Amino acid sequence: MKGINPSSRRDFMKSAAVITSGTLGLSMITNPIQASEFPVENRINVMGPRDGFSLHIGTLLSMMTWMRDVILMPVRGMSVDQLDFLLDENSNSIGAMLLHLAATERFYQVHTFEGKDFSKKDLDRFDVAMNLGNEARKTIKGNNLDFYLSALEEVRENTIREFKKRDDEWLMSVDEEWPWGPTNNYCKWFHVCEHESNHNGQFKYIKSRLPSKRT
Amino acid sequence: MKGINPSSRRDFMKSAAVITSGTLGLSMITNPIQASEFPVENRINVMGPRDGFSLHIGTLLSMMTWMRDVILMPVRGMSVDQLDFLLDENSNSIGAMLLHLAATERFYQVHTFEGKDFSKKDLDRFDVAMNLGNEARKTIKGNNLDFYLSALEEVRENTIREFKKRDDEWLMSVDEEWPWGPTNNYCKWFHVCEHESNHNGQFKYIKSRLPSKRT
Repeated sequence: MKGINPSSRRDFMKSAAVITSGTLGLSMITNPIQASEFPVENRINVMGPRDGFSLHIGTLLSMMTWMRDVILMPVRGMSVDQLDFLLDENSNSIGAMLLHLAATERFYQVHTFEGKDFSKKDLDRFDVAMNLGNEARKTIKGNNLDFYLSALEEVRENTIREFKKRDDEWLMSVDEEWPWGPTNNYCKWFHVCEHESNHNGQFKYIKSRLPSKRT
Repeated sequence: MKGINPSSRRDFMKSAAVITSGTLGLSMITNPIQASEFPVENRINVMGPRDGFSLHIGTLLSMMTWMRDVILMPVRGMSVDQLDFLLDENSNSIGAMLLHLAATERFYQVHTFEGKDFSKKDLDRFDVAMNLGNEARKTIKGNNLDFYLSALEEVRENTIREFKKRDDEWLMSVDEEWPWGPTNNYCKWFHVCEHESNHNGQFKYIKSRLPSKRT
């Protein structure tokens, strides 16, 4: 819990003090509501609205950006051998889990942005990582860290592009058919975010048990 | 990622359609802003405002409530032996990690609500769980699941009581001195939430390796 000091990735965030017309779902309002009490921030540890995004989408994105920086801390500088390491015969490698996070975010993109399932192209790229387990242990290996970081970055850039096009009414809209029960897009995308922390707990458990760390 | 279907714990949430005067930090406004576009929800998988809480605090609380239900799923029905199980000599037990989550939330209560560190009473109850490791392995054992659930519930009830008293200006206020760098209360409390998911990843890793699960 201590020592978390995420580096900043601010290319898509600029300082300003605007809450868009999506704020209260008042899509009739053409002039954005000024809310100088909450200047839009670009500091990584200051969660809240972000310039160019609706109030709730920007706030969610501030969490996703912070979370991504946090989960990449333990993997920075890892070698191919460390990314491929299997702690036991049923463990997933850290590399496979990194690709699993990109696959999961892609799954929620096609589901919540397009109302679709994985295309053939998505399946070819992400199905094994999505499911992890034996097939992933066999086939997701030998990649350096940049391979995984590039996949995560590419998928995230698309999330940001699509978030920019949407408003809080979309984020709050409820899928009554979702297997969890009635679930809104906010919950689905919060899950994409917290799911990274879930695997980060496993990254750290495995990292502290890498052969090089054993005494 | 699949099959998450949190049970509901709604005692403190009632359906309504009010956003408090804290919504835009317009503390001068005495009449709450009606926002029927976003009815306040009580469905566990529908994140967003909650009745009786400011816009952002209620939305954060909806995430914390969902997250808590999710992380308790893997531990439901666990025996004392399973809660005490150590996967290796450096592992924490699931029981100790559950108490660690209560300790962490208590830490952020005294820090963000009172601007203090742990009192003698808090240290006596939570210091070992806060730090985990050898001392926790030695001393946090032999407790049944209800012991851990009661601690989590008691601490959470206090969080909810204190959240009710605060507004979004408090949630957004920035601590310029925090070791992570400038950090607002929203980020600190989001961390309390995602930190539960971090340990849930370890709960599931350990649970799937309990002696009873081995073939």
